[in-house]
Amino acid sequence: MAGMAPRTRFRHMHTTPAHSTFNQPMSADHMPRAGGIASFMRLPVQDNTQGLDACFVGVPLDVGVSNRSGARLGPRQIRTESVVVRPCHPVSRAAPYSCLSVADVGDIAMNIFNLPEACRHISERYKELLEGSCIPLTMGGDHTITYPILQAIKSRHGRVGLVHIDAHGDVSDSMLGAKVTHGTPFRRALEEDLIDPNATVQIGLRGSCYTTDANDWQIEQGFMVVPGHECWHRSLTPVMQEVREKLGNRPVYLSFDIDAIDPGFCPGTGTPEIGGLTPIQALEIIRGCHGLNLVGCDLVEVSPPYDFEGTTALTAANLLFEMLCVLPGVKTKA
Amino acid sequence: MAGMAPRTRFRHMHTTPAHSTFNQPMSADHMPRAGGIASFMRLPVQDNTQGLDACFVGVPLDVGVSNRSGARLGPRQIRTESVVVRPCHPVSRAAPYSCLSVADVGDIAMNIFNLPEACRHISERYKELLEGSCIPLTMGGDHTITYPILQAIKSRHGRVGLVHIDAHGDVSDSMLGAKVTHGTPFRRALEEDLIDPNATVQIGLRGSCYTTDANDWQIEQGFMVVPGHECWHRSLTPVMQEVREKLGNRPVYLSFDIDAIDPGFCPGTGTPEIGGLTPIQALEIIRGCHGLNLVGCDLVEVSPPYDFEGTTALTAANLLFEMLCVLPGVKTKA
Amino acid sequence: MAGMAPRTRFRHMHTTPAHSTFNQPMSADHMPRAGGIASFMRLPVQDNTQGLDACFVGVPLDVGVSNRSGARLGPRQIRTESVVVRPCHPVSRAAPYSCLSVADVGDIAMNIFNLPEACRHISERYKELLEGSCIPLTMGGDHTITYPILQAIKSRHGRVGLVHIDAHGDVSDSMLGAKVTHGTPFRRALEEDLIDPNATVQIGLRGSCYTTDANDWQIEQGFMVVPGHECWHRSLTPVMQEVREKLGNRPVYLSFDIDAIDPGFCPGTGTPEIGGLTPIQALEIIRGCHGLNLVGCDLVEVSPPYDFEGTTALTAANLLFEMLCVLPGVKTKA
Amino acid sequence: MAGMAPRTRFRHMHTTPAHSTFNQPMSADHMPRAGGIASFMRLPVQDNTQGLDACFVGVPLDVGVSNRSGARLGPRQIRTESVVVRPCHPVSRAAPYSCLSVADVGDIAMNIFNLPEACRHISERYKELLEGSCIPLTMGGDHTITYPILQAIKSRHGRVGLVHIDAHGDVSDSMLGAKVTHGTPFRRALEEDLIDPNATVQIGLRGSCYTTDANDWQIEQGFMVVPGHECWHRSLTPVMQEVREKLGNRPVYLSFDIDAIDPGFCPGTGTPEIGGLTPIQALEIIRGCHGLNLVGCDLVEVSPPYDFEGTTALTAANLLFEMLCVLPGVKTKA
Amino acid sequence: MAGMAPRTRFRHMHTTPAHSTFNQPMSADHMPRAGGIASFMRLPVQDNTQGLDACFVGVPLDVGVSNRSGARLGPRQIRTESVVVRPCHPVSRAAPYSCLSVADVGDIAMNIFNLPEACRHISERYKELLEGSCIPLTMGGDHTITYPILQAIKSRHGRVGLVHIDAHGDVSDSMLGAKVTHGTPFRRALEEDLIDPNATVQIGLRGSCYTTDANDWQIEQGFMVVPGHECWHRSLTPVMQEVREKLGNRPVYLSFDIDAIDPGFCPGTGTPEIGGLTPIQALEIIRGCHGLNLVGCDLVEVSPPYDFEGTTALTAANLLFEMLCVLPGVKTKA
Amino acid sequence: MAGMAPRTRFRHMHTTPAHSTFNQPMSADHMPRAGGIASFMRLPVQDNTQGLDACFVGVPLDVGVSNRSGARLGPRQIRTESVVVRPCHPVSRAAPYSCLSVADVGDIAMNIFNLPEACRHISERYKELLEGSCIPLTMGGDHTITYPILQAIKSRHGRVGLVHIDAHGDVSDSMLGAKVTHGTPFRRALEEDLIDPNATVQIGLRGSCYTTDANDWQIEQGFMVVPGHECWHRSLTPVMQEVREKLGNRPVYLSFDIDAIDPGFCPGTGTPEIGGLTPIQALEIIRGCHGLNLVGCDLVEVSPPYDFEGTTALTAANLLFEMLCVLPGVKTKA
Repeated sequence: MAGMAPRTRFRHMHTTPAHSTFNQPMSADHMPRAGGIASFMRLPVQDNTQGLDACFVGVPLDVGVSNRSGARLGPRQIRTESVVVRPCHPVSRAAPYSCLSVADVGDIAMNIFNLPEACRHISERYKELLEGSCIPLTMGGDHTITYPILQAIKSRHGRVGLVHIDAHGDVSDSMLGAKVTHGTPFRRALEEDLIDPNATVQIGLRGSCYTTDANDWQIEQGFMVVPGHECWHRSLTPVMQEVREKLGNRPVYLSFDIDAIDPGFCPGTGTPEIGGLTPIQALEIIRGCHGLNLVGCDLVEVSPPYDFEGTTALTAANLLFEMLCVLPGVKTKA
Repeated sequence: MAGMAPRTRFRHMHTTPAHSTFNQPMSADHMPRAGGIASFMRLPVQDNTQGLDACFVGVPLDVGVSNRSGARLGPRQIRTESVVVRPCHPVSRAAPYSCLSVADVGDIAMNIFNLPEACRHISERYKELLEGSCIPLTMGGDHTITYPILQAIKSRHGRVGLVHIDAHGDVSDSMLGAKVTHGTPFRRALEEDLIDPNATVQIGLRGSCYTTDANDWQIEQGFMVVPGHECWHRSLTPVMQEVREKLGNRPVYLSFDIDAIDPGFCPGTGTPEIGGLTPIQALEIIRGCHGLNLVGCDLVEVSPPYDFEGTTALTAANLLFEMLCVLPGVKTKA
Repeated sequence: MAGMAPRTRFRHMHTTPAHSTFNQPMSADHMPRAGGIASFMRLPVQDNTQGLDACFVGVPLDVGVSNRSGARLGPRQIRTESVVVRPCHPVSRAAPYSCLSVADVGDIAMNIFNLPEACRHISERYKELLEGSCIPLTMGGDHTITYPILQAIKSRHGRVGLVHIDAHGDVSDSMLGAKVTHGTPFRRALEEDLIDPNATVQIGLRGSCYTTDANDWQIEQGFMVVPGHECWHRSLTPVMQEVREKLGNRPVYLSFDIDAIDPGFCPGTGTPEIGGLTPIQALEIIRGCHGLNLVGCDLVEVSPPYDFEGTTALTAANLLFEMLCVLPGVKTKA
Repeated sequence: MAGMAPRTRFRHMHTTPAHSTFNQPMSADHMPRAGGIASFMRLPVQDNTQGLDACFVGVPLDVGVSNRSGARLGPRQIRTESVVVRPCHPVSRAAPYSCLSVADVGDIAMNIFNLPEACRHISERYKELLEGSCIPLTMGGDHTITYPILQAIKSRHGRVGLVHIDAHGDVSDSMLGAKVTHGTPFRRALEEDLIDPNATVQIGLRGSCYTTDANDWQIEQGFMVVPGHECWHRSLTPVMQEVREKLGNRPVYLSFDIDAIDPGFCPGTGTPEIGGLTPIQALEIIRGCHGLNLVGCDLVEVSPPYDFEGTTALTAANLLFEMLCVLPGVKTKA
Repeated sequence: MAGMAPRTRFRHMHTTPAHSTFNQPMSADHMPRAGGIASFMRLPVQDNTQGLDACFVGVPLDVGVSNRSGARLGPRQIRTESVVVRPCHPVSRAAPYSCLSVADVGDIAMNIFNLPEACRHISERYKELLEGSCIPLTMGGDHTITYPILQAIKSRHGRVGLVHIDAHGDVSDSMLGAKVTHGTPFRRALEEDLIDPNATVQIGLRGSCYTTDANDWQIEQGFMVVPGHECWHRSLTPVMQEVREKLGNRPVYLSFDIDAIDPGFCPGTGTPEIGGLTPIQALEIIRGCHGLNLVGCDLVEVSPPYDFEGTTALTAANLLFEMLCVLPGVKTKA
Repeated sequence: MAGMAPRTRFRHMHTTPAHSTFNQPMSADHMPRAGGIASFMRLPVQDNTQGLDACFVGVPLDVGVSNRSGARLGPRQIRTESVVVRPCHPVSRAAPYSCLSVADVGDIAMNIFNLPEACRHISERYKELLEGSCIPLTMGGDHTITYPILQAIKSRHGRVGLVHIDAHGDVSDSMLGAKVTHGTPFRRALEEDLIDPNATVQIGLRGSCYTTDANDWQIEQGFMVVPGHECWHRSLTPVMQEVREKLGNRPVYLSFDIDAIDPGFCPGTGTPEIGGLTPIQALEIIRGCHGLNLVGCDLVEVSPPYDFEGTTALTAANLLFEMLCVLPGVKTKA
């Protein structure tokens, strides 16, 4: 019997099985999980988006943070933890690597000592990545990066709707005198008409405030705001039904700040706020994006020096995979 | 345009803006959060309570703990993490620093090598702090300290009601032969008539017990006991309604042992018990104290050596700020 | 008065009070919790199961893990954290050490460099431990160990029912070409008729999958599967009612993989999956086993190198005590 | 060949091989190192010193510390790390377990909430342990414990010589008003004539001082003081030659505070001072005690919460084994 | 006897004893070390340098780092660890607080999102601090800050000599296109004539290089360079004799990058290089500065997120105290 | 001026500059160090050794360890920390990437659940890697792997000389009954004539022993043994002179177990022994291999779960780069 048993084929590098049209993550049945160069899910790496439907890309920047730094190491740590993510979805039964051509396109090179210049580098590089029809799934990096990404998104898709999951509104006008920081991206985005305020949703906002009119500004602009305390003790699946109805089929960008999740689950972030979302609610949110016309997604503010067991980066890796599973073009069976 | 822009005023020290009557925390828009001497919320420090409505004060003691030590470092770590707390409340819209005169009055000096003597030092110092109408918000330190604090409270306010949030009842008669430890404060307090048993509420009690009659003693004394397992899967807002009705407008002391919260969220404590409160429930409890006649509050048993990411101390800092926001005299808009 | 006071009797070693028939854990009122040799709950240690109704036993093995190793240190760390567990149950009021004769019988010696041989050593040793009527409560070690334990269980009790709590089904046919790993024990167990598929329940399964037919195989075999996402936002007490009805009074083995619990609570494990059970649900599950005819239990996959604050091992220690409290023969008062 | 190979005998518990007169540590060739109840070196445990030439004993006390607490967990952690220590010495070729009858006698039970009373408990228990001719090798606990141990030593051996390795002189008159703390043991010992000042050696003293006359007091009493900076860049073997000549064959107590070693090597301690001894110098010191008439030894101030990789406890375990190897009656081959 | 004993005076705040002319650190005999607001050595805090001979000041900046961030938290962590430093020197017997008026003047406020602007803020603030005759002892922050500090130093003292202890030369022309980073301060300083190349000494340089002509540029400029490997296995006291002879009595600035010290001792830094100085050599260097005409000192690049046991910050605190002890005007007895 | 400035060329992926013949590591001046897929030194990755003079390769195996596991994650962590290593040597001025064609060839795929089978997989894969003239620089993985590597080395180069740096001799005959473990590789290698005992050198051996005849066996076989205590307080440069003379120009394999280095510097390993080599001595050893005819090198036993600050992996990355710098064909200028 042993002689007949199909022998495990060990593969040392990223190779796509003959029967597959698309890139496949390196399989844990061919290479131990502790092995293999740590690209996202041990996918093949390429330096452009030619032929890709979606790509994972990192932005190793943290000079936009106001409190604890460390998010520059986020992309590398998310890739490291992503090696345990398997290629199929347990509930929707989506098999995204059978539907889409996906690769890891590495990280954005930039001048990290000059934040505005770094933003220009990010924006330029994203314009290149967006030249085809590729959807970027970004690993941050601090939340500043969403601003230049949205600039590039606009040049490709026009003004977009926004689903923004975060503990903070990130709509400050300035911080310590600076206009571009991780606390201001959506203020800048709105000013530059990168996002449609009437198609912008913010979920999870909470925590002590600078003033007593917290979130009033966003509501005045037309944002839909679901503050953190309205999420307590409940499923967010119904909220996402509302969100889908509100956003319809316009192009939508999804920006997920890991600090939306409670620091009990995801301590590895720079500005933690207690009383946050559970990972279960995070899954409900992303799964609830199925059907939206997503044109880009990011997962930001993972700070590995504060993530001792890797759970924050692991959560990020799973959420990025969940985002991939709800991209347009991915079929589900459930 | 740039020339006209109002320039950020950087402030190097605690200074109160001209237009304000009260002390203000150092603003994160004037000093980066990583900067500034770490008093609680970077408030001004003074060595007495003259002119203060409330004060933050630390008791760096941990020789009363029976299991893991480390709580002596609690006050310093809570102050460190408090630098990210902002001055306004996100839900009630309270702005406590516009209503109350508040400062950090430093720590209690005491002989930490002799627990009964340390208790006397604590009691004496609190009597001084209570000479005016100041409400102390105490950062522990182990739970032993609530006993001498209540002694001082009684000398100022008489016997008080008690809201006690904890994984443990802390009503042992003795431990290893000692009468004063972190497991006995409320037994001693009752014996000395410091608290009114019919106005005493304990929430969150749980965990394995020495005997099969756990909590029976307290119930016999007249305490209202809400054990941990009765808090599962629910909001505690209704419980707090009951508590407010029970306690009325008598003077009440609030004692919050961080181990009431599940160690998944707050691991940094000496005697963790699984199956505990969520930080959300902790917020509901403190917010539910709005309307009580609070005369003192404490947050104890934060043990920084077991708090790797600082989440426990951060939670403590937020809960202390939440306590400040429900003190008598703080106006809310919500 | 002092002269009359009953003096605390300090005990330096495991001694059973004169009035007790059974072994007792070393009391925290006789020895500080930081003291005493760390057997489980500081119980007496013996090298066989003669005269015992139940025993705690460790299997320090982790060469069956596919991702992060470290579980070999699980038994020692669980013992270390168990010193804070007290002898009575807070809700059922069970006092297991008044009902059962229990000891810690140490660890299984085995050749950890050869997994199949180690499995033989485990199986042989468990047959010895099972010679009387002793119920083993096992501290893992990785999940591979449940396979040889079930072999021994079958030789003593015949085919058993199974309550299996886990993030993963552990029914792979092979991993990297190996038939015996921590991903295959229940496949092997079914093939060898160690468990009855129609009396097998799996709770908590979740996480990304190798294929789109996740869990279909088990359902085809007759397993009752309660996937993780069906456990969200709810009590599991009703599920356990169903489980008890299904299993009746046949002999049942309980296997609890700590990764069933969300890594926010229990990060110290090798293959964490987000969106898992809460410790509260874990307690509901084990308490819900009261009434089952349990013939053996295990708690596996605690990996101390990823358990910085000890919360995972502490959870494991508590869950093992909870298992003891629902063994046949333990009386409850609630 | 395989069939003939002598089979490894796996042993599950502490058993002494038939050919041995004395207790043996559990062998790593019979039980994996991760297994076995963690007594010191996995030695047999007994509750008295009858028939023993030497014993390992723990004192889980840390309420005498002035800075970072945690040393109460020292004995348990030293035992945990001791499982990797093997039974023979690599240089002297000593085989202490062939020469001496040794066991782990567990920990001292005491009232940890009252430091003077705890000292009385320690002293009383050591008198019992010393009733035969057993030499205690103590695992601390903070340095306060050496004071009551020396009281017991005196009652058995009279006034002794002292080899004291430490970053601090520990001869303060009082701390925060207390006479008995970890900073005062040798002042008290001298006052009570427990040690002979002319046969007292202190090695490694260093660090900033309260006054400018540091160490002058000890020198006035007749102590030999080798300050830390005189140990820099050199072997301490010649110093130990001097020490042996000075102490002759009188009974000598060896007290080793782990903070004597530089915190780069041993960070897990409460009052670290930079510029300390290397572990190599520590080995030279203890090996240099060969030939002294040692009647007791301790290794104190290991604080596991600050010992992330376990290196401090591992060092302590090795140094305790080295102490065993130089006890009177242990033969060497080198 | 007890009645006569001078009672310990507990002091809750910074108060200078009546007999002292100068500020004193809070004493550990008046306040437990775990207590007291954590200014440097618990010195009084003031917001200007009026009347001061020396001040401790923090610069919480890390956006100039090229590898691991975190140094922004350095000043706070150094202050935290400094609470264990005592006021007198163990070898020179210096008592700096009897000779100099010293305070902690808090941190520099600045726009941390714009590195060149932050540098302007630093330079401006230091000019204020230098208006009297105060010598600033700076806690970094990344090494970028030495550049604007030297600009201020020049405006007060003219071009200075430099003693620069570091693993890296920090004389790059640019990094990622930026001229001002933590890798370029001394290139900029030389270009702006802030330092005299013939009175500049670099000690400890090591680690892999971008090109094969490492350190050649500095030597061409006239720097004295003592590379790391020339420091191996030796005392640096003779080197400092040379340094003192070379620098004479001109004004000298001392800049100490903690990464000069081997990461085995000081892991908490952003760009560690193996094979570095020992803390003993660091002490020899600073003690060897006694006699130099120091006009300013800094200790930079402490990154607390990588300093688990606090040893790096503790080392920094001690080295800053050692710097204070060699300032002009501090008398020694040795 | 700005317009004329040569613009930094940001490169997003591994690209070799036009003027270079050989692969170059990704430059920190083109991509921030936190960015880029973490191959060794961010070198290009390829799946065979065609055209290569040397390659970095990982073996993510730890089932051969007897104490603490975790070394399976060594290759990934070494790659992560290697991103800070720069391409030129600071002392020899070697520029290996100008002399040799080098790539990272990824990790060995194998059945990690069956140690003997894994060894066969390793041996087979190394035979492929060795088909050209490529010299493999291996990142372990536990020390078991050197045995199958040496099997492959023999098939390509015949019996070799060995320079083995380790705390342990690794010449046990068996462990727990197993013949192939991390404690036996050189026993097996000698039995299979893979190494020449008269050209075998072991440096750094130390630590407690199973028997009193430690290292005698090796000396009987003809090994040159330099035990750890003979390395204390000295440079190892003279020893390496002896080693070079002894080994001449025969093919030599270099095997470096990171536990040779003292755990104060490199705690991240499974079987630490105190009193070890310093990183400085490690550098002296490897630099002292210049001139040997090295045909393969490995660096094993890095266990990331015990390497909190990454210093152990950083040391490993540097030592691997140092090994590259002494390979035959690398020119030096010093």
